[in-house]
Amino acid sequence: MHQMKRLQESCKKNGPLCVGLDTDPGYIPPEVLNNYASPAQAVLAYNKALIDACAPYAGCFKVQIAYYEEMGIEGLIAFAETVSILRNKGIPVITDAKRGDIADTAKAYARAHFSGDFETDILTVNPYMGFDTLKPFTEFCKSETEGGKEKGIFVLLRTSNPGMVDIEKQALASGGIVLDAVGNNLKAIAKELALGYGASDWKDSCSPVGAVVGCTEESDARQLRDTYPEIFFLIPGYGAQGGAARIAATLLDKAGGTVNSSRGILCAWKKDEELADVREAGKLTMDLIVKAAQKAAKNSKEDLLNAVEALRG
Amino acid sequence: MHQMKRLQESCKKNGPLCVGLDTDPGYIPPEVLNNYASPAQAVLAYNKALIDACAPYAGCFKVQIAYYEEMGIEGLIAFAETVSILRNKGIPVITDAKRGDIADTAKAYARAHFSGDFETDILTVNPYMGFDTLKPFTEFCKSETEGGKEKGIFVLLRTSNPGMVDIEKQALASGGIVLDAVGNNLKAIAKELALGYGASDWKDSCSPVGAVVGCTEESDARQLRDTYPEIFFLIPGYGAQGGAARIAATLLDKAGGTVNSSRGILCAWKKDEELADVREAGKLTMDLIVKAAQKAAKNSKEDLLNAVEALRG
Repeated sequence: MHQMKRLQESCKKNGPLCVGLDTDPGYIPPEVLNNYASPAQAVLAYNKALIDACAPYAGCFKVQIAYYEEMGIEGLIAFAETVSILRNKGIPVITDAKRGDIADTAKAYARAHFSGDFETDILTVNPYMGFDTLKPFTEFCKSETEGGKEKGIFVLLRTSNPGMVDIEKQALASGGIVLDAVGNNLKAIAKELALGYGASDWKDSCSPVGAVVGCTEESDARQLRDTYPEIFFLIPGYGAQGGAARIAATLLDKAGGTVNSSRGILCAWKKDEELADVREAGKLTMDLIVKAAQKAAKNSKEDLLNAVEALRG
Repeated sequence: MHQMKRLQESCKKNGPLCVGLDTDPGYIPPEVLNNYASPAQAVLAYNKALIDACAPYAGCFKVQIAYYEEMGIEGLIAFAETVSILRNKGIPVITDAKRGDIADTAKAYARAHFSGDFETDILTVNPYMGFDTLKPFTEFCKSETEGGKEKGIFVLLRTSNPGMVDIEKQALASGGIVLDAVGNNLKAIAKELALGYGASDWKDSCSPVGAVVGCTEESDARQLRDTYPEIFFLIPGYGAQGGAARIAATLLDKAGGTVNSSRGILCAWKKDEELADVREAGKLTMDLIVKAAQKAAKNSKEDLLNAVEALRG
């Protein structure tokens, strides 16, 4: 079973929440951070505790490499360890790296994240330089791939930032907008790979190639879900970024998807009313912030499942 | 003086060649590679020797992080060391990472490459997700920036791969093509930052914001050079990628640029006729492959300067 299918199954079983380990040391209160020899060690300890505490409420975890790259070599050691812990526990893990480059360089990135120290299950990729740049990644997603890895990728389609209008939404002379050009190609690649896994009709199967679709506008969500009914979505923008569960539920229709929440969970301790006194006294502990995160994950899962239910009802 | 200006000055003094340290261990012959404890150590030793041997013929060096990421933690230690050696020698260095992401994540990438273990002079960035994603990087390029760093960025404009037609060259309903939309915004940002350094007319100055423009089509090269006369270019596609010195010379006109050659230099030992016998005998040494690279760098520099001369004459 390929990694995207495994992710889809996990989301059916555990719910659609993707816990985002965008673990900036700034998301850990100073009184906890200071108990560790370095910010990277504090981040790793927080990640380990979060994985155990939130796994029952998560379809998967996503690790955003930027926050680890910022911490240099020690940060990337913590990144590798985090991804490895998730894989060893059999929890689906997405590396959010948005890598994109040409020819041999793209091959190097594919090998960097689908083998070796940083090996992950599923990787996010940036298609801007052209569709030939996706091939080195999709080579790892095939049913008969290098070492039978059967990895997955999420291609950027519609991101959740205001600036997505600058390029993704530009109208093309040939009709549609830029993201349609990406989507059409993505759909063709996704279909080819799904059929390679022996599906007679890929609409009933799941492709190892998914799309990133931000959860920020209801009309876009409906349109993209209808246009790409067979594609599994990675859905950022819910929670701290302001996207509502209702929009997420729209995107979770049909082939489904996984809804990322990062800061809403990592920084739950900042808003948890039960922690008001201990927070003001500067007496938070690792145990307390992990419990706040766990509660937020549980609530987010319920929020999403309720929204899905409401949409169906 | 900001880093792009320093690069421009260096190219005026030492010529426009950018030596690309895309040092895949596969670019080192096995009989040399095997003398080192690991591929990453061999790569670092080759880089060190290349820097000393090629510096007289190079306006700068570019380090492509993908090849180091592929080697995991040890590879990234070699990457950090390579960039650091160049900076300590005062040789302008570009990190080719094509990072791009939104909001806090983009900030993390900017800090990752403009401070800490991986600190570089100039970074390549991918603008696909929108122009708001460039801001965290340009914050480090301002005259009054965090820690007075005065860094530079090269924004992807026209890449050198065949797939660049898929998005970059798509015609827009509003006129022009996608890369024009990127270019117009890039020009506005570049101008604003150049004027921030006190230039009365930015056309006579140099902006810390440059563009990546591939060296693969004469007509594109002429048009892009004319449309962006004030922008300094990073020019890939020359040498092993097949771009001719004549096209590079067109792009080197006006504000100028730096022309990258990676495999043409790193793998010069594979084609060097003087090495035919020793190569066939499997008796290459580090010293011999570095000398072949040095000769290739010297020839590339002359090739480029002759083409510039021919264009002017």
